[in-house]
Amino acid sequence: METKTMNIKVEKAKTSKIGQVDFDNLAFGNVFTDHMLVSNYKNGSWGVPEIVPYQPITLDPSAKIFHYGQSIFEGMKAYKDEKDAIWLFRPMDNCRRLNISAKRMAIPEIPEDYFMEGLKALLKLEKDWIPQTPGSSLYIRPFIFASGNGFHASPADEYMFIIAFAPSGAYFSGKVKVLIEEKYSRSANGGVGFAKAGGNYAGQFYPTQLAVDKGYNQVIWTDDNTHEYIEEAGAMNIFVRINDTLLTAPTSDRILDGITRKSILKIAENKGIAVEERKIAVSELIEAAKDGSLKEMFGAGTAAVISPISTFGFRDVDYDLPETPNSYAALFKKRITDIQYNRAEDNFGWRFKV
Amino acid sequence: METKTMNIKVEKAKTSKIGQVDFDNLAFGNVFTDHMLVSNYKNGSWGVPEIVPYQPITLDPSAKIFHYGQSIFEGMKAYKDEKDAIWLFRPMDNCRRLNISAKRMAIPEIPEDYFMEGLKALLKLEKDWIPQTPGSSLYIRPFIFASGNGFHASPADEYMFIIAFAPSGAYFSGKVKVLIEEKYSRSANGGVGFAKAGGNYAGQFYPTQLAVDKGYNQVIWTDDNTHEYIEEAGAMNIFVRINDTLLTAPTSDRILDGITRKSILKIAENKGIAVEERKIAVSELIEAAKDGSLKEMFGAGTAAVISPISTFGFRDVDYDLPETPNSYAALFKKRITDIQYNRAEDNFGWRFKV
Repeated sequence: METKTMNIKVEKAKTSKIGQVDFDNLAFGNVFTDHMLVSNYKNGSWGVPEIVPYQPITLDPSAKIFHYGQSIFEGMKAYKDEKDAIWLFRPMDNCRRLNISAKRMAIPEIPEDYFMEGLKALLKLEKDWIPQTPGSSLYIRPFIFASGNGFHASPADEYMFIIAFAPSGAYFSGKVKVLIEEKYSRSANGGVGFAKAGGNYAGQFYPTQLAVDKGYNQVIWTDDNTHEYIEEAGAMNIFVRINDTLLTAPTSDRILDGITRKSILKIAENKGIAVEERKIAVSELIEAAKDGSLKEMFGAGTAAVISPISTFGFRDVDYDLPETPNSYAALFKKRITDIQYNRAEDNFGWRFKV
Repeated sequence: METKTMNIKVEKAKTSKIGQVDFDNLAFGNVFTDHMLVSNYKNGSWGVPEIVPYQPITLDPSAKIFHYGQSIFEGMKAYKDEKDAIWLFRPMDNCRRLNISAKRMAIPEIPEDYFMEGLKALLKLEKDWIPQTPGSSLYIRPFIFASGNGFHASPADEYMFIIAFAPSGAYFSGKVKVLIEEKYSRSANGGVGFAKAGGNYAGQFYPTQLAVDKGYNQVIWTDDNTHEYIEEAGAMNIFVRINDTLLTAPTSDRILDGITRKSILKIAENKGIAVEERKIAVSELIEAAKDGSLKEMFGAGTAAVISPISTFGFRDVDYDLPETPNSYAALFKKRITDIQYNRAEDNFGWRFKV
């Protein structure tokens, strides 16, 4: 990667909060580091990013973020190996995807060097915050939102790009029970489901709460037209193993092009595992659960890494997944985290040294 | 309506900005009055609303509004008659719809008396800001957003409810050219299209910009499955007149239950105009445009009131609407604005004195 030298101004925090943090008992995304990276878009261009103390944001009540949901984000993680070197996983893919989301949401694209050089500078400053507890990592949240003002329903003229860090434990604790949803939907054909747009997430909260009230952790969304095919789980892409074949739904304008998802597909290809990227009917899942050919289901995403699914529910019936020896979920999780934490060779060029 | 007495604390602005405003040249939604109403949701309940000077909002960078699009709003207007009395139009319908949106977006519902009493108190304080210039009005923006913190993709634990006012001119200037969209979509079956959720608007900006670049003002959305039927225009419901019959798409979980829309349907019924609430095929529109039976198209919404459409485009062909004498658009606009500005009798019980 080309590394342009950029002079990133740093305003250091007067005191650090790091002593107050219990790194052995981290939840997900509710503790933040001492600094953040900020760039403002004004008069048609992004300003050179600066590092400032993590601090509140002040906006006019008419700022468009409050009214029209013009916001996008990414999720990444930083890892520290045994020699205290800092690693990222496919960071340029996040940068590119942020700009794909930006285009769809009429947000100006962030220059790649602002993203990458800004992120690296902030990571170097905050390196003591990267947890080394197994299962924990530094969650990285790049986001852009409309800070410009006005009640007219049109794109804002000003935006903020921020990168903030949250040392985090696991997103899910334990195995995950999912409900296949056939009333509510996550996204439309021709909509914004492929983008990491804020509104895609808020729209899932209510149906997810209904599922949680029934004892599930997450919803698996189906297509909004027929509700016959599974799509994704909102915070995770979904994989299914039938006999020894790995299945996942193809990406589309409704489904996020997950970085963990595509890494799994690559590893599977490398290991000689049969993969089918195709529509997966709910009826097919149920048949496979009944005849015993359904061996595994798991979710894949940056926050959740790889989350084995223990049970899926459909129309008030629960289908338990078997305990499968030599599970694909365990294999992929080991291979991916070994690369992420620099514990094994990386044949794919995914690991990125900061 | 029951009017509970509520003690709304008022902190007055030290100075007023009203002298700086050119009321004869108002744009839409970019000038704000001196005060706003604020209620905070914390620890499971909404606080009694307070009136404070219009002022910036300060939030943590992890506030969920920035990440997950958890926000809803309403659009209303206040009108002043010749005797300086202040009027609203069907305000309880906005309050109820805000709470319908709230439920779908997993936002706690605002008590109706907080909304209504808060709004009335703020209107009385800001009454000098209500424009009397023809075509202008005081645009009212009630909104709720997630102010609670954390990167976990789940509903926030804190929210802000705000009502802000913007004295405004017309939303559109002149007649409106619309493009019937058949690639991008606004909403999914089972999605959040019926809610006034922020993300519904941001998702429209990019396709609308593509249409603007081709010389149109707005997009008419079609269903995301077949793209064969027109739905709404994002900031307006759409009406079509074929011969003397008024057509509009039925509301659904994809289409907003517009207050101007339902008022038009009621007035039409009252005037003996034939109305059909049913799916309207694009092919039907084009046939009617070709054979001359398509007499009018117009958009209807609080911001835009009733906006006659001069031209619709479909697949690179423009279809001009004829000049129709005794237009329905003009009839409905006159009837509705006469009620709103207290210039005529209100048989419907829609006008609400503040």
